[in-house]
Amino acid sequence: MPSIYYLYSMEALFNSLAYFVPIGEAEKEIISNLFTEKQFKKGELFLQEGKVCRHAGFILKGLMRYYLTRDGEEKTFYFSRENEFICNYESFVPQIPSLKSIEALEDSTVCMISYDNLNLLYSTMANGERLGRLILEQVFVEALQNLNSFYVDTPEERYEKLLKAHPDLQQRIPQYYIASSVGVKPQSLSRIRKRLSMY
Amino acid sequence: MPSIYYLYSMEALFNSLAYFVPIGEAEKEIISNLFTEKQFKKGELFLQEGKVCRHAGFILKGLMRYYLTRDGEEKTFYFSRENEFICNYESFVPQIPSLKSIEALEDSTVCMISYDNLNLLYSTMANGERLGRLILEQVFVEALQNLNSFYVDTPEERYEKLLKAHPDLQQRIPQYYIASSVGVKPQSLSRIRKRLSMY
Repeated sequence: MPSIYYLYSMEALFNSLAYFVPIGEAEKEIISNLFTEKQFKKGELFLQEGKVCRHAGFILKGLMRYYLTRDGEEKTFYFSRENEFICNYESFVPQIPSLKSIEALEDSTVCMISYDNLNLLYSTMANGERLGRLILEQVFVEALQNLNSFYVDTPEERYEKLLKAHPDLQQRIPQYYIASSVGVKPQSLSRIRKRLSMY
Repeated sequence: MPSIYYLYSMEALFNSLAYFVPIGEAEKEIISNLFTEKQFKKGELFLQEGKVCRHAGFILKGLMRYYLTRDGEEKTFYFSRENEFICNYESFVPQIPSLKSIEALEDSTVCMISYDNLNLLYSTMANGERLGRLILEQVFVEALQNLNSFYVDTPEERYEKLLKAHPDLQQRIPQYYIASSVGVKPQSLSRIRKRLSMY
């Protein structure tokens, strides 16, 4: 039987899904049955490079980082945090080994759903397919905008966008991860921050 | 009344969609009513940077190129050709101005559907939402794999992947566009091709 804390936490997931389709009692029951809550300690991996991404998640609390390792160097792509979805779709959708890792940057609580259970949700919940389509559209567009920004924006512009989208992240993420996600070395990020603080 | 040629062409679209969900007579009628055929001359734009992408398409015949312009230089990202979908989802989904252009590299014939009609298709066709979800999953994964490959692959590896996925494209696409999509100058592509031909 789910604890009161558990039900309370799930509310955040219900609210996020209700942005896309109506979530009534019947839908809440299906969702509660198909998702399970999992804790990640700071530094623990949600997904390891080389393994198949078998779960999608919704972060109730915490912060995670997407990265890949190339020639021994880590390249940070993206951050996800509370009230956001977490999944490496390139691995999850075709169920093939992941090129990226996802790591908890803080102690995190995540509502997890397995690949099979997500497909069950799509097919059994009212508007399940519509929900899947609308969420995919959102994460797809966000992912493409982020990746494109590596081409079209300067590191300074990327840094400004990150701060604007997530003003609190500057305090929560170590500067070398921010630098990597912006596409510069930590020293260059310091210079960018100094320049920006002059305005 | 649609011509026989038109019905024949639409078959390619029906077949592609039938890969995802059953397409019977009722579905064919909805699809035929919501899509319209359009010709693009070589060099003509399917989508212009700065404009909102108001249509998604399915290429019946031809070949198109996605690119963006930065500091006066064109950067080619991707190619789509017959029996593939064509759309800049970053602009289409949120209906905001596009950062990229899409240009016909050959005289092309495309089945076009407007944003509103696609939403009508999702909501009125049996399995319409499911169809949308499954197509999005496919294009999402392909787009991410392509963009990630800029980080994880060498230009030589990107070139080999392009040839493997589309062996005929080498003859159909000017070498400077291939070079750009691989991430090198045309001279470097010549060297890569020479190296590869030695094996």
